[in-house]
Amino acid sequence: MHDPPLGQRFALLTDLYQLTMAACYFEQGMHEEATFSFFIRKYPPHRGYFVAAGLEEALRYLETLQFTSDDLAYLESTGLFSSKFLGYLKGVRFTGEVFALPEGSIFFKDEPILEVSAPIIEAQLAETFIINAVSLQTLIASKASRSFQVAQGRPLIDFSLRRDQGTDAGLKVARASYLAGFQGTSNVLAGQLYDLPIFGTMAHSYVTSFPQEIESFRVFAKNFPGITTLLIDTYDNVQGAHKAVQVAKEMEARGERMGYVRLDSGDIAAISKEVRKILDDNGLEYVKILASGGFDEFKMAQVLAAGGQVDSFAVGTKMGVSADAPYFDCAYKLVKYAGRPVMKLSTGKVTLVDKKQIYRRYDAQGRLERDTITLRDELLPEATPLLQPFMAGGGVSRELPTLKESREYFLSQLALLPEPYKALEDPAPYPVDLSPGLKDLQARTEREIQQREL
Amino acid sequence: MHDPPLGQRFALLTDLYQLTMAACYFEQGMHEEATFSFFIRKYPPHRGYFVAAGLEEALRYLETLQFTSDDLAYLESTGLFSSKFLGYLKGVRFTGEVFALPEGSIFFKDEPILEVSAPIIEAQLAETFIINAVSLQTLIASKASRSFQVAQGRPLIDFSLRRDQGTDAGLKVARASYLAGFQGTSNVLAGQLYDLPIFGTMAHSYVTSFPQEIESFRVFAKNFPGITTLLIDTYDNVQGAHKAVQVAKEMEARGERMGYVRLDSGDIAAISKEVRKILDDNGLEYVKILASGGFDEFKMAQVLAAGGQVDSFAVGTKMGVSADAPYFDCAYKLVKYAGRPVMKLSTGKVTLVDKKQIYRRYDAQGRLERDTITLRDELLPEATPLLQPFMAGGGVSRELPTLKESREYFLSQLALLPEPYKALEDPAPYPVDLSPGLKDLQARTEREIQQREL
Repeated sequence: MHDPPLGQRFALLTDLYQLTMAACYFEQGMHEEATFSFFIRKYPPHRGYFVAAGLEEALRYLETLQFTSDDLAYLESTGLFSSKFLGYLKGVRFTGEVFALPEGSIFFKDEPILEVSAPIIEAQLAETFIINAVSLQTLIASKASRSFQVAQGRPLIDFSLRRDQGTDAGLKVARASYLAGFQGTSNVLAGQLYDLPIFGTMAHSYVTSFPQEIESFRVFAKNFPGITTLLIDTYDNVQGAHKAVQVAKEMEARGERMGYVRLDSGDIAAISKEVRKILDDNGLEYVKILASGGFDEFKMAQVLAAGGQVDSFAVGTKMGVSADAPYFDCAYKLVKYAGRPVMKLSTGKVTLVDKKQIYRRYDAQGRLERDTITLRDELLPEATPLLQPFMAGGGVSRELPTLKESREYFLSQLALLPEPYKALEDPAPYPVDLSPGLKDLQARTEREIQQREL
Repeated sequence: MHDPPLGQRFALLTDLYQLTMAACYFEQGMHEEATFSFFIRKYPPHRGYFVAAGLEEALRYLETLQFTSDDLAYLESTGLFSSKFLGYLKGVRFTGEVFALPEGSIFFKDEPILEVSAPIIEAQLAETFIINAVSLQTLIASKASRSFQVAQGRPLIDFSLRRDQGTDAGLKVARASYLAGFQGTSNVLAGQLYDLPIFGTMAHSYVTSFPQEIESFRVFAKNFPGITTLLIDTYDNVQGAHKAVQVAKEMEARGERMGYVRLDSGDIAAISKEVRKILDDNGLEYVKILASGGFDEFKMAQVLAAGGQVDSFAVGTKMGVSADAPYFDCAYKLVKYAGRPVMKLSTGKVTLVDKKQIYRRYDAQGRLERDTITLRDELLPEATPLLQPFMAGGGVSRELPTLKESREYFLSQLALLPEPYKALEDPAPYPVDLSPGLKDLQARTEREIQQREL
């Protein structure tokens, strides 16, 4: 695919209000610096931490943001905008800065994932795309990470593409789940675009298209002796296992080794034990068992707790749409304009003002202990600042890590997160506090607005 | 955007197993006709009907399916495929037929949404994309339709783009919700691509960027007097309403009329009554109230039941990800190969064999009464066949309806669906039966497989 750059392709992938607000700013001559902060307000049920992902896509978009002549012609056709404003839009590029958590970072609610500072029109126009891109990948990485925890080293494969919410989600789920520890994906295009390991087995349709199940196994083994995984539940798992044994023996006779058998229905814990025994009784200890079909961290934990003999899991739909929490209560909020800290007071939706930093303290064993959200220029001794500059003057200002490097970083951090915060159900709340400087500015800003507006 | 055709852009957006199975079929010389049936196995909680959507995208994909030289080079680099097979793939096009429900059709569980018949490799390769495309739009249309029911004529606007699962979902949600009765979307690119009405208001960031809230209102009214909607909850709804009154009076003095005020937080039923009174007491009966913030059919029903004075709803995230049911238990299953009806027997996952048709009977008042799933060539007197031929010989074989026409069709059908099937909670199960011919073939096929395989 030779697509136009993201920022040209998707300049119009925005809410109309971004453009009507931009027109107002333009007519008023409002071009001073605005800072927007993107954060998650609440944990969905059973989530105790988040995994940052999607930053690279947001940066690529900002770097190339530009309205094409087709875009401008469409906007003109709406009759809403002056030709002066459309002429201005034609020249708009993103010239600002971005501070952000590196992809793979573990973070917590209220902590900014990224902060954008730029002339207000530029920062405002980018809102919709940034939320869309960063929230999806963060959502999926945060969900996939839970499967990774439970799997305890067993390889996990993303099988979700068909039921992901659209083509873009299909690609991003493959990327974000890999970042969160998955081994690879069934998604071939994601394999190509992100250089991910790709995996595949066979479908029931393949088995049923042959006059006999065992024939379908033989043909697959013959064509793919290096990656033979046989789906054995089409008619009956036990019968299927016996046929797989026969084909495995035929492979042995050719000096080949079957990789996996795959279970896709029924009581996986019970069936896997039965199938394991059939394989072992026939000297096929080396043939592994892959399980698929409705898996997420909860079902995986159940199957393993029940003694399921599963060597690898294919994780599909429930991870791919983050089924138990399919969106975040996240926001991209203006926190400063023209040097003035700002906030809204709407019921239950207060924002932390001004440019910020997150400092993290680690305990003597190097494990995550406590975070403090501060003003950007505060210094906290013996704590590590987490938000890093990624963009300045509209250009990416540091070498971005590769996806593999972000994955390594995530894995190293997850290992340092104490267990109570990782509990599958009702995790402990990780301590995040506000610095006195931030609290004070917050209070002063709120008082000042109340005096002015109420 | 000048994208390559869908089928070229996304030939690799498939599961690896589609390609390994295709290689097996190819090596075995299996090129006979296969029929795959796409259907939904179960209703998610509280759903009593589905709304078909996404067919046009699936057809555009099939029409243009083609592996590019880049695709083939990537597949070669995996080392999995023979050069003979890759040479074959280069020439693969979709040459088959598609029977499907027109977009906007109301349908029920187990009923085929579409059936694809083609040489098995072609029909198999298309599986992943077809499920991805049709299930997303059908999911969203089926969810959005419920908001449409509750709104009882009040205009609904899709505000979900930022939290939709990716860019493609953002576009498809705008399209599918419009099909299901929404008035339009905030999504500008969707407006351009699908010729949808677009709507926008202002964000809290806009209000807070001004030194005074009322100033932000004045500037918006000055720049967009024809579409003035003021967001009044940034600091306080009541104070905001009084400021809106002042600006509305200033507009009146210029011969203009404010359109809406928007409420976005708090107890919308109570606040809307208070705001309505403030507007009315000031002679602004014509200024309407738009509500947003976490709406779906359930919250909308609560607010209206509590006497909420809302003229229009902006519906966002919960519709855009179908939050209470973010995926369907749907499948694209082989039902016939080389003239032979086929099925799998896996626990709990039985498929209806062979090419099928759905017949619908209407009662004397023209309302939906009962459906029967039959074999494709059965005739049911006094009943209407629902699956129509859309593609033959790999080309679209009839003029596709415009999106507006599909929307009209949907609205006409929804009006004919009796209330019990539309209940928001625990809807009555709509009666769908199988023809004796289908039941008989189903039983014979199952017996034959059991004898052969078990």
